[in-house]
Amino acid sequence: MEEEEQRTEPVVYEDLVDKRHDELMELLESRNMKQLREHMNEMQEFDVAEFLTSIEDNRMPMLFRLLSKERAAEVFANLETPEQERIINSITDSELAGIVEELYVDDAVDIMEELPANVVKRVMRTATPQTRNLINQYLHYPENSAGSIMTAEFVDLKKYMSVKEAFARIRRIGEDKETIYICFVTSAHRKLEGIVTVKDLLLADPDAIIEDLMDRNVIYAVTTEDQESVSEKFSDYDLMALPVVDKENRLVGIVTVDDIIDVMEQEATEDIQLMAGMTPSDKPYLRTGITEMWRNRVPWLLFLMLSATFTSMILTRFEGMLAVQAVLVAFIPMLMGTGGNSGAQASTAVIRSLSLGEVEPRDVLRVMWKEWRVAFLCGLTLSVVNFGKMLLVDGRLLNNPAVTVPVAATVSLSILFIVMFAKVVGSFLPIAAEKIGVDPAVMANPLISTMTDAVSLLIYIYVAKLILKI
Amino acid sequence: MEEEEQRTEPVVYEDLVDKRHDELMELLESRNMKQLREHMNEMQEFDVAEFLTSIEDNRMPMLFRLLSKERAAEVFANLETPEQERIINSITDSELAGIVEELYVDDAVDIMEELPANVVKRVMRTATPQTRNLINQYLHYPENSAGSIMTAEFVDLKKYMSVKEAFARIRRIGEDKETIYICFVTSAHRKLEGIVTVKDLLLADPDAIIEDLMDRNVIYAVTTEDQESVSEKFSDYDLMALPVVDKENRLVGIVTVDDIIDVMEQEATEDIQLMAGMTPSDKPYLRTGITEMWRNRVPWLLFLMLSATFTSMILTRFEGMLAVQAVLVAFIPMLMGTGGNSGAQASTAVIRSLSLGEVEPRDVLRVMWKEWRVAFLCGLTLSVVNFGKMLLVDGRLLNNPAVTVPVAATVSLSILFIVMFAKVVGSFLPIAAEKIGVDPAVMANPLISTMTDAVSLLIYIYVAKLILKI
Repeated sequence: MEEEEQRTEPVVYEDLVDKRHDELMELLESRNMKQLREHMNEMQEFDVAEFLTSIEDNRMPMLFRLLSKERAAEVFANLETPEQERIINSITDSELAGIVEELYVDDAVDIMEELPANVVKRVMRTATPQTRNLINQYLHYPENSAGSIMTAEFVDLKKYMSVKEAFARIRRIGEDKETIYICFVTSAHRKLEGIVTVKDLLLADPDAIIEDLMDRNVIYAVTTEDQESVSEKFSDYDLMALPVVDKENRLVGIVTVDDIIDVMEQEATEDIQLMAGMTPSDKPYLRTGITEMWRNRVPWLLFLMLSATFTSMILTRFEGMLAVQAVLVAFIPMLMGTGGNSGAQASTAVIRSLSLGEVEPRDVLRVMWKEWRVAFLCGLTLSVVNFGKMLLVDGRLLNNPAVTVPVAATVSLSILFIVMFAKVVGSFLPIAAEKIGVDPAVMANPLISTMTDAVSLLIYIYVAKLILKI
Repeated sequence: MEEEEQRTEPVVYEDLVDKRHDELMELLESRNMKQLREHMNEMQEFDVAEFLTSIEDNRMPMLFRLLSKERAAEVFANLETPEQERIINSITDSELAGIVEELYVDDAVDIMEELPANVVKRVMRTATPQTRNLINQYLHYPENSAGSIMTAEFVDLKKYMSVKEAFARIRRIGEDKETIYICFVTSAHRKLEGIVTVKDLLLADPDAIIEDLMDRNVIYAVTTEDQESVSEKFSDYDLMALPVVDKENRLVGIVTVDDIIDVMEQEATEDIQLMAGMTPSDKPYLRTGITEMWRNRVPWLLFLMLSATFTSMILTRFEGMLAVQAVLVAFIPMLMGTGGNSGAQASTAVIRSLSLGEVEPRDVLRVMWKEWRVAFLCGLTLSVVNFGKMLLVDGRLLNNPAVTVPVAATVSLSILFIVMFAKVVGSFLPIAAEKIGVDPAVMANPLISTMTDAVSLLIYIYVAKLILKI
């Protein structure tokens, strides 16, 4: 072990970033703007954005203005909304126009969707009519559709071109494209006819014709398609870029893999938030205000709290019976907890499988049959362990004379039924939600728990009536 | 609306896939092997794999053998473990060797990790010594490290090469590389000196020297780095490929973006499963056996069931007091549910922010202060609504004379304290877990609920003592 520790540790990239951040701060303190500009033009855009974000006073917009025009747009796209707003408010119209024109249209649209209306107005006013039209058109695609995440900057080729001509075109128009590695072959009517990669072109004879090289079997998406389905295509087919066509099958844009990474993070975050009973929000945690968090959280808490009225009613209704066997009350939280947890396991497994496309609504019976068997095994295990535990721990160790064999049997048998009910319902509801077009992630722990609570209680009471004859 | 519906709907890609599947089945039924082979060699590998998976009898391995050697490897990598096993068991050693040599080393390693030991032995025996060594070396990197997901097939260049020479090298060795678009410039000692993209090369003068074109500011990972940190780099910097260096800073492999998409799905699935109290598994739902699901689920259920013993003990301890005011029992499930849900919201938000890198352990105080204020707002809202609801619904509407103003006040005040406790604990525990190296996702709904259950009960009892003087 000693020897292991003495080996040289590799320098991790994060340390380099931290070190450079300190250097930049020193340059800033000593007002060495020339070197600061040089550094900022060499660094990764993301790191420049992080550096700017870390400066909270009005030197930030000033530093931003040191960047070259193209750099400025790239860094701008990497900033969060509050910083973007601060910058927009402190630059001239012509500087703003420069940035907007340099942005990829999908980034511009993303930014517009977050900025306050008055800022958007100013941005749109400074843009050229052509850019303004493009942005407006993109803003009209449904939220989270392929159309809303695609970009217009792609390389299109014609099938009669030679490889040499294709390279000439790539060299001429490639500079500003999101990707040049996948080229899209279109007809005179802008219909998508095939794709060809730069790898194909590099490995081919310079005089070969695109038509003979292109892959006609193209995977594509439709503008209105949900982004979740788009990201499934990237994951299934290992794509770098996906063409998007409109209703008339014309190529209108492409989605690139770096955008899909953001989509995947966003979709997973949304699912996770919904599954914990929160309104989804893609704002970073530390950037979300207190009242916004309250607005995202309180509706579900209220709804679930009020739904618990049913459980209260059941308990009130059977108050007399529970008074006769007061010991039964002590196990209500455990039974409800077990029901909720069992149901949550099933619903979570099914929700995740639905969003990965591993399970389809038509599998509903297979899923329920599977959960029914798993529930039986889990329920039986818990039931047996609980029976032993109640007699040994609650009965002997904690010396509670009320914990008799019939009482332990009542609780244990209830567990078996509750687990089976919870798992079958927990697996059914997300699929039913998907079927009727509701996000299955809603059918997760909080809702399932609240629903199983009332039923668990009823199961418990009827089993008690049966076994304890009360 | 009528008019809208009459428009031609675009043909979605999924329908094309379904249609082709039917055509293939017809060809298979009519034993038209020649055309079947042609189709299978033109289709996307993923679609071929899906088609093969759909055939459950022994025609599947037979169809697989129709594929060309290179195709066979690509399709093989897209199959699930059971199908891979069936194929390995029905092909000759030399066919197997052909596939293993064609596979990218990261895919080969993925496959080896899943196959049963005896099958792995046979695969390793048929591989060339060189491939065997490479696979063995990769199998030794820690699970989920950059080393375990990287691949060895990259294009390396030298800085003294000209663009023309670089292209010649790409053309010569590019065929079998995972990506040719990012090239890695290495020194004589295999140290990473810079990267250059094919886009840079295409836009440069053919006589330019790589040294003048390459970007020295390279983002990289270390072999032992966790895959979650690797995928954060892809998402931050919009990368297509990331170089991986060893302890001596030598370039040993690259990670490509298509692998990161799988990593992200896998990490999100693992988090979600852990958060619902299940042992993570990356097997697709419908492919997981009943006993395996039972093994993944029952430990948590058992643990949580047994933990509920504390709640039982508290209830038993205060049995006498609850008998005096039996109405209090009716609100226990609602209070516990509200505590659990509030805590789960906070813990989920924090867990997700930790895994996206938005929150670091050093932010612990900021996070708790935020949650404390949100909890106060949420708790107050719930408290006020509950007070009104109890008096109106439980008291008047359901005609329960036991629901008096002091009782409603007891329950409502308890809500406020419970929500505040749950949210602060729920936000603290995941950060504490991260700090001590435990996966924060464990500190989610099931565990938080069980913990808050006992405390909620104690809060309720002490508030009742205070207000109702019992």
